[in-house]
Amino acid sequence: METNTFSKFTAELFGTLVLVLMGCGSAVIAGANGATGVGLLGISFAFGLSVVAMAYAIGHISGCHINPAISIGMVVSGRMKASEAVIYIIAQVLGAIAGAGILLLIASGKDGYSVAANGLGQNGYDAFSPAHYNLLSGFVAETVFTFIFLLVIFGSTSTKNIHGGFAGLSIGLSLVLIHIVGIPVTGVSVNPARSIGPALLVGGAAISQLWLFIVAPILGAILSAVVWRYVLERK
Amino acid sequence: METNTFSKFTAELFGTLVLVLMGCGSAVIAGANGATGVGLLGISFAFGLSVVAMAYAIGHISGCHINPAISIGMVVSGRMKASEAVIYIIAQVLGAIAGAGILLLIASGKDGYSVAANGLGQNGYDAFSPAHYNLLSGFVAETVFTFIFLLVIFGSTSTKNIHGGFAGLSIGLSLVLIHIVGIPVTGVSVNPARSIGPALLVGGAAISQLWLFIVAPILGAILSAVVWRYVLERK
Amino acid sequence: METNTFSKFTAELFGTLVLVLMGCGSAVIAGANGATGVGLLGISFAFGLSVVAMAYAIGHISGCHINPAISIGMVVSGRMKASEAVIYIIAQVLGAIAGAGILLLIASGKDGYSVAANGLGQNGYDAFSPAHYNLLSGFVAETVFTFIFLLVIFGSTSTKNIHGGFAGLSIGLSLVLIHIVGIPVTGVSVNPARSIGPALLVGGAAISQLWLFIVAPILGAILSAVVWRYVLERK
Amino acid sequence: METNTFSKFTAELFGTLVLVLMGCGSAVIAGANGATGVGLLGISFAFGLSVVAMAYAIGHISGCHINPAISIGMVVSGRMKASEAVIYIIAQVLGAIAGAGILLLIASGKDGYSVAANGLGQNGYDAFSPAHYNLLSGFVAETVFTFIFLLVIFGSTSTKNIHGGFAGLSIGLSLVLIHIVGIPVTGVSVNPARSIGPALLVGGAAISQLWLFIVAPILGAILSAVVWRYVLERK
Repeated sequence: METNTFSKFTAELFGTLVLVLMGCGSAVIAGANGATGVGLLGISFAFGLSVVAMAYAIGHISGCHINPAISIGMVVSGRMKASEAVIYIIAQVLGAIAGAGILLLIASGKDGYSVAANGLGQNGYDAFSPAHYNLLSGFVAETVFTFIFLLVIFGSTSTKNIHGGFAGLSIGLSLVLIHIVGIPVTGVSVNPARSIGPALLVGGAAISQLWLFIVAPILGAILSAVVWRYVLERK
Repeated sequence: METNTFSKFTAELFGTLVLVLMGCGSAVIAGANGATGVGLLGISFAFGLSVVAMAYAIGHISGCHINPAISIGMVVSGRMKASEAVIYIIAQVLGAIAGAGILLLIASGKDGYSVAANGLGQNGYDAFSPAHYNLLSGFVAETVFTFIFLLVIFGSTSTKNIHGGFAGLSIGLSLVLIHIVGIPVTGVSVNPARSIGPALLVGGAAISQLWLFIVAPILGAILSAVVWRYVLERK
Repeated sequence: METNTFSKFTAELFGTLVLVLMGCGSAVIAGANGATGVGLLGISFAFGLSVVAMAYAIGHISGCHINPAISIGMVVSGRMKASEAVIYIIAQVLGAIAGAGILLLIASGKDGYSVAANGLGQNGYDAFSPAHYNLLSGFVAETVFTFIFLLVIFGSTSTKNIHGGFAGLSIGLSLVLIHIVGIPVTGVSVNPARSIGPALLVGGAAISQLWLFIVAPILGAILSAVVWRYVLERK
Repeated sequence: METNTFSKFTAELFGTLVLVLMGCGSAVIAGANGATGVGLLGISFAFGLSVVAMAYAIGHISGCHINPAISIGMVVSGRMKASEAVIYIIAQVLGAIAGAGILLLIASGKDGYSVAANGLGQNGYDAFSPAHYNLLSGFVAETVFTFIFLLVIFGSTSTKNIHGGFAGLSIGLSLVLIHIVGIPVTGVSVNPARSIGPALLVGGAAISQLWLFIVAPILGAILSAVVWRYVLERK
């Protein structure tokens, strides 16, 4: 691996680590109850501000994808080579696992915490959806939310957009937005790596339902790339 | 429709779809209770961050009005042709209906949800105001809030304002602000399309009260355009 | 009054109207309880986002002081003529009264609302402090908070600061910050106009305690201007 | 001390004063309950917005470290001389003590407040952790969170990052993020000065546990500087 590629690989790994540790950590450590914990709004900000923070920290190194759906969307929209996307995705999945691991280490330091009872912020549908939304809702939500997320990414980072400096904010805040709406449905993935990391440590339904959080975000990303390339910014 | 117009039409349609799906979705899916849901503050951020996200995503394509009151205000202030505004407004209303439809699809995946009982984030006054504010309060609030919203838009996007890159943030955050204050009064419209979309699917009072959420925002926008053009930035 | 001065006067009047209507309105209409209303955090955002919105709307017209303590601080720091500050302050007080009046009109549209029982977001200390903080705490808090607020204003708008475009955000977010901390003490003024507007319509203790919310913010602003001019950015 | 150094010293002192007064003040005055107070989310915003406010106020004077771990990280990464860091750290500790003192003065104006019962927002682990996380969790969390915080600082202020104007926002919002996740663990330090100030006035366990909030943040900062210099932005 050449120097530049190694920097990108490390940046994507650290960035995804931060997203999973801090996003899922806000749910596991600080809690979804808005009176005693940070609430659903606080968890939403945790996921989105992780992206804001990382965008300005490593954006100039790797572009700060920290999400396989984004890397795949970049390939489909013609901005990235597939071979580079593979390296990015490996780094993202490794980072997500590391983030989930560090979260488990910290969470275990509280009496009464167990992965089985408290989880690691994993995603789910049907009986494992936070508010018991069914499979169809979960699939539609993940696909549509990723579609929207990618539209924001394509537009905010377009070479035709003269306010590119704001991309880190608009992309991160759009992830806050998606979590504000979607946590009750699936816990919100829109990012296969973010789902894979906790699922591997939690096991059970988190693994058997994992397919949805890989397929739907990638589908949403591909649709968004096509719409962007052939409708919104067609040449 | 020429290429450029088609891109603008699609951008306005998607943008308004996102505003309605995510803004109204935060209320329907994530809930107005601040302990168990995202609370009024979370809903406020959902509406405003939808605008922030879309402003940086499609602002360079269509200007990101995603609101007929804004397009009408732009005509009155001399920045847009009426014929183009008509196309924009059609796209906005279609997008709002689509957004409400997707929301209905996702919401229906939860046991016990029904449009009649839970609504789609529609606006209302008197008995249908969230905190039972009367018609006069609703009309004044919608007119004044839209007036303020348009002032922020005119000022933030003025050619005399050298910090134009911040317009997406200031306009979106001003919509957060308006929702923080106004949800108990009418649920906050300041945008006829945002009200029309859910109302068509909900029916009943949402339809019979719809006039206010068309008339008051447009009135506020026209007053704002006049004040801006002849007082605040008169030449 | 010449054209330019009239625009500035109107801008300051509208800006302070928005600050009082939306800031105080969030407390009166949307409520300080974080479970059923927007909570103290929502009220904090309402005051601060009013400044963000107005800064980018009218900043290029009048500088967006919308606060007599700021105008006085600008005079002391040598950036504004006293004669112009007088005109600004008149506009600010008139705008604050108008904002409180519109708020009263909207609030009155809810059954059971009365100024006597529910107030208009007025400030107070001792028995009229939200959490019964005494006079000394109130005076220290208002002086120190205004001192800090003005430091942010002087620094963010300094000609030596190359990131001047961010001033609207940093100043507005610093007002969010001050409200997050200070609402239980006095309801937070740091702005004589913001206190005068509601007090005139509420009467009673809001009037008899008004002196503190005029004296302490002005004292804090003068101290800040002196520290800025002679210590932090001395030439 | 020459003029320039004196300005920097004063800026760091005031900046750290603001961070401690407002950050810890939000917990002590406005409260960690999200229904009756600002909640954990409000406290998180208080710490982070203190950094946003100060970054744009004094960033052009001293760089706005207001945190000994940052100054040490800057030395390790080769951006600052050790002799200047010593002066910065003295100013930071003095400012933190002053901030804690002003907070004590304001808090004491409420009947029933006592340092022993209500504290001053001090940090702790084990029995003194807000949610009773043990020593290992506390040490890991403080080290990892400071590591992440410094990555954001190095990246946002890198000369290779063309969006340097956003550094104040991204760094401040990353501190919001860290508090959203970490308050239940230790109350969050990631800043020895922020821990020393309250501890000196509170005494007891706050003093005996202070070592962790000095050692772990500095360790995290050094690791981050090494990773940044030799991996992420190696030449």
